[in-house]
Amino acid sequence: MIQATGYAAKHSFSRLRPLSFERDDPKAGEVEIEILYCGVCHSDIHQVKNEWGNTVYPCMPGHEIVGRVRRAGASVSRHQVGDMVGVGCMIDSCRHCEPCEAGEQNYCEGPNSWLATYNGPMMPAKMSPTGENSYGRDNTYGGYSDVIVVPEDFVLAIPDGLRPEVAAPILCAGVTTYSPLRHWGVKQGDKVGIIGFGGLGDMAAKLARAMGAEVTIFTRSEEKLSEAARLGATAVLEGDQAAFTALKGSFDFILSTVPEKHDLNPFVTLLKRDKTIAVVGALEPLAPVNNQQRAMHRTSIAGSIIGSIAETQEVLDFCAEHGIGPDIELIAIQDINDAYKKVLSGDVRFRYVIDMASLKLEEAA
Amino acid sequence: MIQATGYAAKHSFSRLRPLSFERDDPKAGEVEIEILYCGVCHSDIHQVKNEWGNTVYPCMPGHEIVGRVRRAGASVSRHQVGDMVGVGCMIDSCRHCEPCEAGEQNYCEGPNSWLATYNGPMMPAKMSPTGENSYGRDNTYGGYSDVIVVPEDFVLAIPDGLRPEVAAPILCAGVTTYSPLRHWGVKQGDKVGIIGFGGLGDMAAKLARAMGAEVTIFTRSEEKLSEAARLGATAVLEGDQAAFTALKGSFDFILSTVPEKHDLNPFVTLLKRDKTIAVVGALEPLAPVNNQQRAMHRTSIAGSIIGSIAETQEVLDFCAEHGIGPDIELIAIQDINDAYKKVLSGDVRFRYVIDMASLKLEEAA
Repeated sequence: MIQATGYAAKHSFSRLRPLSFERDDPKAGEVEIEILYCGVCHSDIHQVKNEWGNTVYPCMPGHEIVGRVRRAGASVSRHQVGDMVGVGCMIDSCRHCEPCEAGEQNYCEGPNSWLATYNGPMMPAKMSPTGENSYGRDNTYGGYSDVIVVPEDFVLAIPDGLRPEVAAPILCAGVTTYSPLRHWGVKQGDKVGIIGFGGLGDMAAKLARAMGAEVTIFTRSEEKLSEAARLGATAVLEGDQAAFTALKGSFDFILSTVPEKHDLNPFVTLLKRDKTIAVVGALEPLAPVNNQQRAMHRTSIAGSIIGSIAETQEVLDFCAEHGIGPDIELIAIQDINDAYKKVLSGDVRFRYVIDMASLKLEEAA
Repeated sequence: MIQATGYAAKHSFSRLRPLSFERDDPKAGEVEIEILYCGVCHSDIHQVKNEWGNTVYPCMPGHEIVGRVRRAGASVSRHQVGDMVGVGCMIDSCRHCEPCEAGEQNYCEGPNSWLATYNGPMMPAKMSPTGENSYGRDNTYGGYSDVIVVPEDFVLAIPDGLRPEVAAPILCAGVTTYSPLRHWGVKQGDKVGIIGFGGLGDMAAKLARAMGAEVTIFTRSEEKLSEAARLGATAVLEGDQAAFTALKGSFDFILSTVPEKHDLNPFVTLLKRDKTIAVVGALEPLAPVNNQQRAMHRTSIAGSIIGSIAETQEVLDFCAEHGIGPDIELIAIQDINDAYKKVLSGDVRFRYVIDMASLKLEEAA
């Protein structure tokens, strides 16, 4: 057993507080990682507050984890002790379904779907068609902690060109936007729209630019307009009727990163014929969509969730190669509750990353 | 000038009544068609009642027209006097935009979009970015009449193997379902779901069966279950939780033919990964869709409207080749207002087709 410590919520109405717990020693094929940094994702807040109705408590979030391999179980070959590595949203999948065989673990169709880095299987026993939990774990504790043990093939290599604290948000915000940009074939010269300009929107804009696309960011915040320009993107305020009219029928792909219910109708009219809006931010019911606009140009609205392990490695390497990454602000774990408030206010365009040294200082104190 | 007569509504609250009017003589490239049959489409009722807010009165519906060429303008080469021909939802398009160049006139992006067989351009002057009407016609009178004049390349050849009255609904209900089945690549062995079992659902099921698909029809009407079996389709009652659970994640394509607001959430869970629900019936806001279900399997909801001229000819030939067609009931035009009531009751699975001989009897009287 490994003695571990982290920050967790005991109830949906609780603040995150220190929690001591145990992790299993690494088994064959697993690595033990000393966590150095963990990004703060909007979904951490949804989960802590039980806004999807599936939270298991205590809830210890964190799925943008970067650290060093401290110990390797038997037969580990992909990573060595001392390597800088990352862990994203998944730590396992069924490994046998068609999507898993195709390397798309994020669409695992096993009885419990994939095993999330925190909060356990995506399909817990009560939601599973078999009524069972094939992972044998009801709850998993995420990266707001000092150590984690993960099967080596769900562990990513952090390229030398990326600072580890910058790499952390790429493991969720990065791959969540990279995967749909690739899946819907964004290429040089395409016109891409990004709805929402928080942590996901920032990564989406940078990735699409690096793919050679012409990027337009749609935001509700006037303060963010100049930030968009700094990224080489055009910025449009939601509600700017004249701008929307001028952009009608001009986009090859639109990615919605808004993390809550929103109205896609103004954006449907911006798509070229046969093109798609992919929604990655909101995992809840959206505003009603008028099918008339969609039908007139045979457009689609799709969902997409994170990305595969292979895509996660790809986006890390892509960011290192193109010299891009999220804008981050390091915080101490003791400031996590305040950080949540700021994220919820919607004004944060950068990504908070917890410097886990702060947790070690606490342990030492 | 051609003296014509038909049935039209003068206001949104009016019954359809006889109307005498004039049509222009066929110009170069146009043919004059003596109308023998015209199908009754659910959208005729939407339009007459101004439920899309764009109706021009008097409104003379009808876009499932079959008749004989009576006269040909100069330089007409595709059709000859005496030919049995059809006219569907469009009688012209801009002919210059990218979709028109690609032969997809139904997605015309010209300043007024396509010219509908009745009710004029899809984008009237007040909706057009140019503020003009390039067709020079504000209102067009449809097939609830004795004669129509149409550019020859928007006129379809009715194959010998199809009875003309059966061919009529293929011109809208047929192509509206054929086009998305083809576009989303339905093939031998695919599992296809059809939501709604009225005129469109009936055609969709027959076409998908003829393409080699395994077809499941979803209906709210217990009375229609045996009808579905007669088509070689499985039938499932909407709300049958056990059936929906058993069908989870099993469909390659789902086509929704429901002509009004409805809830797609129960159907999103039935799709395989990366597959699509295409909505062709409802041209209005649908119930809110939960993006969580859509994201978990990267599924899409798309719209599709009618089909191209080439696809309309294809579906006519396909029906003749496979010996399929709509189940129809012939009515006299004097019974049109009663027929509308029956269609609105939702109990009509067959398609009403107006026998235009009834109009001639009226004229003679």
